Amino acid sequence: MNFESIVHTIPMWLDPTGPESDIVISSRARLARNIKGIPYAHRASEEKLKDVVSNVLDAAESAGYDPANFFKNEDLDDFRKNVFIERHLISPALAQKRGNRGVLVKNMERDSILINEEDHLRLQSIYSGFDLMNAWENVDGIDDNLSKGIKFSFSGKYGYLTACPTNFGTGLRASILIHLPALVLTKEIQRVIRSVGQLGLVVRGYRGEGSDVVGNLFQISNQTSLGKTEREIVSNLSSVVNQIINYEKKAKDMLLKEAKQQTEDKIWRSLGILKAARVLSTHEFMNLNSAVRFGYSLNLLDKPYLKTLNELMVLVQPGHLQATSGKQMEPIERDILRADIVRQRFIDVKI
Amino acid sequence: MNFESIVHTIPMWLDPTGPESDIVISSRARLARNIKGIPYAHRASEEKLKDVVSNVLDAAESAGYDPANFFKNEDLDDFRKNVFIERHLISPALAQKRGNRGVLVKNMERDSILINEEDHLRLQSIYSGFDLMNAWENVDGIDDNLSKGIKFSFSGKYGYLTACPTNFGTGLRASILIHLPALVLTKEIQRVIRSVGQLGLVVRGYRGEGSDVVGNLFQISNQTSLGKTEREIVSNLSSVVNQIINYEKKAKDMLLKEAKQQTEDKIWRSLGILKAARVLSTHEFMNLNSAVRFGYSLNLLDKPYLKTLNELMVLVQPGHLQATSGKQMEPIERDILRADIVRQRFIDVKI
Repeated sequence: MNFESIVHTIPMWLDPTGPESDIVISSRARLARNIKGIPYAHRASEEKLKDVVSNVLDAAESAGYDPANFFKNEDLDDFRKNVFIERHLISPALAQKRGNRGVLVKNMERDSILINEEDHLRLQSIYSGFDLMNAWENVDGIDDNLSKGIKFSFSGKYGYLTACPTNFGTGLRASILIHLPALVLTKEIQRVIRSVGQLGLVVRGYRGEGSDVVGNLFQISNQTSLGKTEREIVSNLSSVVNQIINYEKKAKDMLLKEAKQQTEDKIWRSLGILKAARVLSTHEFMNLNSAVRFGYSLNLLDKPYLKTLNELMVLVQPGHLQATSGKQMEPIERDILRADIVRQRFIDVKI
Repeated sequence: MNFESIVHTIPMWLDPTGPESDIVISSRARLARNIKGIPYAHRASEEKLKDVVSNVLDAAESAGYDPANFFKNEDLDDFRKNVFIERHLISPALAQKRGNRGVLVKNMERDSILINEEDHLRLQSIYSGFDLMNAWENVDGIDDNLSKGIKFSFSGKYGYLTACPTNFGTGLRASILIHLPALVLTKEIQRVIRSVGQLGLVVRGYRGEGSDVVGNLFQISNQTSLGKTEREIVSNLSSVVNQIINYEKKAKDMLLKEAKQQTEDKIWRSLGILKAARVLSTHEFMNLNSAVRFGYSLNLLDKPYLKTLNELMVLVQPGHLQATSGKQMEPIERDILRADIVRQRFIDVKI
């Protein structure tokens, strides 16, 4: 699989077929693993890292992965690295490193293995909608298969050993990407974020750690993985997310009761601008996307444009635009191309 | 002609058939006249004012006006007065007064006679586009006809005598309503307004004296009428307006050269919002109207929607909305009805 086919494939998790997918974009389960007897990636020699790569690729091939779908970091230019970041396949931290590191993908990017980022392996499965348990069970199966060919660092006391102690134990980070426009509009979101924090979970922006909240999208994940079973982590997070979904639905009902016209006005205007704009920044697009997505969940839009909205969130980001057009672009050029692409996708929507 | 037919008639001057009507909305000539031997309106008894009304209606009937089209101020409720104000037929000052005052209209409001406002008579003709000379010649003919039945106050030294000395002389106020978005966007408008002031002309907002500039619409008129012939006043104003039109066109060319995408983006977004909004204030409507009107003058819009834009400027104002729906409305109700009317008028425009 070459890079071009990555850019032109829509990641499976963007197809909104999962449960509650008008509110929850995706569910992600990630396991951190390291190979016994090899130093952690930040201390290992390039020689050792090379061993990790070949060891992982061999084991993964036996587990059904195609080694041709391994994208080595140093073979990617900056645009391409950004494409992988925008698809949540590699981290900005990995993108900055050279050498024997990269990502192996499978099943239209539902499953991926990040090699030699912070840990030797980061196994990841992303599922559409609110489907954490399936995402975890799937990545757990991949872990089982890989462990036939790789001996992971494991301690009877701590569980799986990882480069950063926050991942000690199960090595599991479960997270969901959730859209909470009503809680933001009613200004209840801060209260929700505080409560979630008190439950040992962490709320971040769209791009994960350290990123701003944009388009009313939030990532919610477990903070530590020690002292609980994987199933407990997943079911704890799921039950909190269930509550948040209920809060969001209540806030939505309140908005429709107290400020129906203003809410509908905001949504329709956003759709009007999406259809009409000739210059559109990523940030503004994400906000318009949020309003129109909210309109979809209110049944204000005729057609199931949810998939379009999901796809555009990835496809109109700077890396994708530059990779598609095959050249470095000035911000204004990107804003024009972004507006063109968005307009084209909404051309049949009547307003 | 009853009030209902006024509300449902589109004033002739809103049909953009006149010269330069994408930039100049309308040209207006107004003559102030008083009847010899009767005190000015602010000092006259109701008995005398009643005499003025019957005297004017008699003379006007001989000049081709239908006395049935006289709308007496005290017969109009507040909505209806606002409708007349919004159509530039009466002034807010007249609207506040009771008794023997009102307006007589003819030719789809192209011609009107305001009776017992500041002066006994204010003869007015409004023409579409940049057509001052015709507007003046027309009102001059009406003046000639009326003078067969009415003896006007006239002094050999000062010319026509008026309640306020600024109107002494010809009693002529010539004015144009002009749309100058490019001069506003390029921030050159202040320089233009200063130059116009130095030429003895005055620049006002959309609603005339004391009103704010809204929707990039400006009224430009002569300041005094003493010491010049009517023809000089009209041709002086016309030549200044010609220059301003040239400045506007140059500013437009510069915008299209320096900021084409941003300019087009602004226009298309405004059209998108006009088509989509569910809640729309008068002020916002006027600004969107301005952007779309600008787009028309740039040939960015497929169809000649200039007439629609002209009509809506009058039809969606608060008085018209309340008169149409026949009831007092809260601002939010008006904003919703305004959005509905506007959306309906642009429903066939593709974006």
